[in-house]
Amino acid sequence: MSNITLPHLPDGFRAAGIAAHIKKNGQPDLALIVSDRDCRAAAVFTTNKVKAAPVLHDQAMLAEHADHVRAVIINSGCANACTGAQGLQDCSETARHAAESLRGAGGQRVDDSQVFVMSTGVIGVNLPMDRIRTGMTAAVESLNADGLEHAARAIMTTDTVPKIAYTEVVTDACAYRIAGIAKGSGMIHPNMATLLSVVMTDAAINSRELKEMLVRAAGQSFNRISVDGDTSTNDTLLALANGASGIAVESEESRRQFQAALTEVCIDLAKQMARDGEGATKLITLEITGAPSSHAAEIVGRTIAKSPLVKTAFYGEDANWGRIIAAAGYSGEDVDPERMSLWFGPVLVFEKGMPTKYSEEQATRAIQTRDVAVRLDLGLGDASATIWTCDLSHDYVTINGRYRT
Amino acid sequence: MSNITLPHLPDGFRAAGIAAHIKKNGQPDLALIVSDRDCRAAAVFTTNKVKAAPVLHDQAMLAEHADHVRAVIINSGCANACTGAQGLQDCSETARHAAESLRGAGGQRVDDSQVFVMSTGVIGVNLPMDRIRTGMTAAVESLNADGLEHAARAIMTTDTVPKIAYTEVVTDACAYRIAGIAKGSGMIHPNMATLLSVVMTDAAINSRELKEMLVRAAGQSFNRISVDGDTSTNDTLLALANGASGIAVESEESRRQFQAALTEVCIDLAKQMARDGEGATKLITLEITGAPSSHAAEIVGRTIAKSPLVKTAFYGEDANWGRIIAAAGYSGEDVDPERMSLWFGPVLVFEKGMPTKYSEEQATRAIQTRDVAVRLDLGLGDASATIWTCDLSHDYVTINGRYRT
Repeated sequence: MSNITLPHLPDGFRAAGIAAHIKKNGQPDLALIVSDRDCRAAAVFTTNKVKAAPVLHDQAMLAEHADHVRAVIINSGCANACTGAQGLQDCSETARHAAESLRGAGGQRVDDSQVFVMSTGVIGVNLPMDRIRTGMTAAVESLNADGLEHAARAIMTTDTVPKIAYTEVVTDACAYRIAGIAKGSGMIHPNMATLLSVVMTDAAINSRELKEMLVRAAGQSFNRISVDGDTSTNDTLLALANGASGIAVESEESRRQFQAALTEVCIDLAKQMARDGEGATKLITLEITGAPSSHAAEIVGRTIAKSPLVKTAFYGEDANWGRIIAAAGYSGEDVDPERMSLWFGPVLVFEKGMPTKYSEEQATRAIQTRDVAVRLDLGLGDASATIWTCDLSHDYVTINGRYRT
Repeated sequence: MSNITLPHLPDGFRAAGIAAHIKKNGQPDLALIVSDRDCRAAAVFTTNKVKAAPVLHDQAMLAEHADHVRAVIINSGCANACTGAQGLQDCSETARHAAESLRGAGGQRVDDSQVFVMSTGVIGVNLPMDRIRTGMTAAVESLNADGLEHAARAIMTTDTVPKIAYTEVVTDACAYRIAGIAKGSGMIHPNMATLLSVVMTDAAINSRELKEMLVRAAGQSFNRISVDGDTSTNDTLLALANGASGIAVESEESRRQFQAALTEVCIDLAKQMARDGEGATKLITLEITGAPSSHAAEIVGRTIAKSPLVKTAFYGEDANWGRIIAAAGYSGEDVDPERMSLWFGPVLVFEKGMPTKYSEEQATRAIQTRDVAVRLDLGLGDASATIWTCDLSHDYVTINGRYRT
């Protein structure tokens, strides 16, 4: 059973978010998350063949030290991607600085190998190490058990709002917590896009099981959203479990509960990302039903979610269902328009290969909202999938035509 | 050997383009092309599982009558897609009207089964048959050996310019001609997008060979362009050969010549379509070299061509090469950034996994043109492919947010 309360860090975690002047605009750009004891860690990384230095660094680090992670340092403003050997060296030095600064602040016996490093921002630029160094001191000084939102703000790039999700799982008289932060909001497409997310819990769970559950949760959440179809070089979803609640996830029932809560937090974050897609004015929930398999449902949903013609029509609040049917048709799945039914909200607009006699006014009203629900039934089977996306607006073009300047 | 002269219809063809008021704005929307003798015909159609009525009509017609095509009737403003049984009936009736009107105009013994029907425009609306009927009479009256451009104008939807290509092939003392018209300019992506094109020649060639050569030409031209990644329900590329020049394509050498000329015309039309993509301000030529196979080169090129982040960066004239490298990375092909080299025009900006010490000013200048050349060498082999695309602008969003209204 899970209850939503005010989001805060799980027990034993502290966080900070400060402005290290990596970003030109002076906004917060360095987040630090620290646990007072070793965490079991698991992560899912970008599938892009071009992997940013921090991804390579973290993959190597997790292979050795998945049971002893103590801190995560995240910068925004510079992706540290396409930066060669220097990029990898800068990751190591960032981790070393974080560990040093934490030791210097007293009490924390943190080793370089216990620090996870994440970056997001412009590709092909080296990390400004002097600013990282200076910023690190400020970040360590700001560490706070109330620092969740500060950290969420410091990892934003073109995001307009910080993304935080939280849930509590009550077991008998005790409870444990799962809190997550994430950032979007361009280069967002299934298979992990410019998505950085850290999910923390004070439950105890081993890293192998944490990994399995994280992959499952990502499959139902982050891998079901699309902003622009671009997959980034830096995507990283990290889960940390420090066990501070004293509750261990061991029984079948507790595993089920943990999986449900973890997936809930990830879906919550993923939807926030889709809603805050670059330039987005709407969150569009695409429900594909009647599919021969959930894989087929996902492919059809993703194809519709990626279509610039579908996305611009929603932006213009034009109930142009033909573009959705056409996108399903070129998804590569073996669909048949004669069997499809399509709804905008409650309005059935298409059935058996043809438009119904729906009211254009009602159909338009169904999409003149910030939350648009679309359901496409393929009429071929019992499987389904939900995909979240956003519209494509003038602002998307403005934001991405001038991102580096 | 081919020479470019003023484009005109090959011998024995006449064409017309008139306003039948299918479009609300009164622009030309009905094109008619007629040959004074039977044509050998071949066509390539959309791969979309949702096929418009005229595509189904033409596929059935070609299966029976590929050696006796006499006329093509094309309307813009209404796609006649997702229109069920009524849509198919409207196609037959359109063909019947065309044949009747041509017979009525005297001399032309044209049968219904000799008329090819093409449509482009809004999905899910029935053809306004009364307007088609009235327009048909006007179209027949306007038929003219100088009607090539009129026909090209009447098939436009959001195209801003008519698309015409022409070449002459001189053999000994004689010559034959190949002329083509085409329309874009949204829902354009490889595997035939909202692309209608008719290519006419007065050479004589059998329909089987014409089909083989047309498929080859399409593979090098129309299937190598991308505007928005959407594949339409109506795509049709039709080739007609009426033999009026008296020159037969039979010898090995004449086949080679014909293939080269046909491909040249198709590439010319395809590039015009990419340049006139909805809202486009630039034609971007992506040359992918050093690939392990031409298929791999094509996949990498298409992935880059589809990336909204790449396209908006070109619109903003931001030499943001990282997005191109990232798109290559998620193409699904087994690429390695350490082996890639990337040029904007003559400027090498990326090599061996890192940016070169290029001048930002020079790189920017290389893309501040209407024709942008980008070359990505994968460093993996000897194969290559050229893909043409355009940028993604505010106007694309404006055009597609209000297309139906």
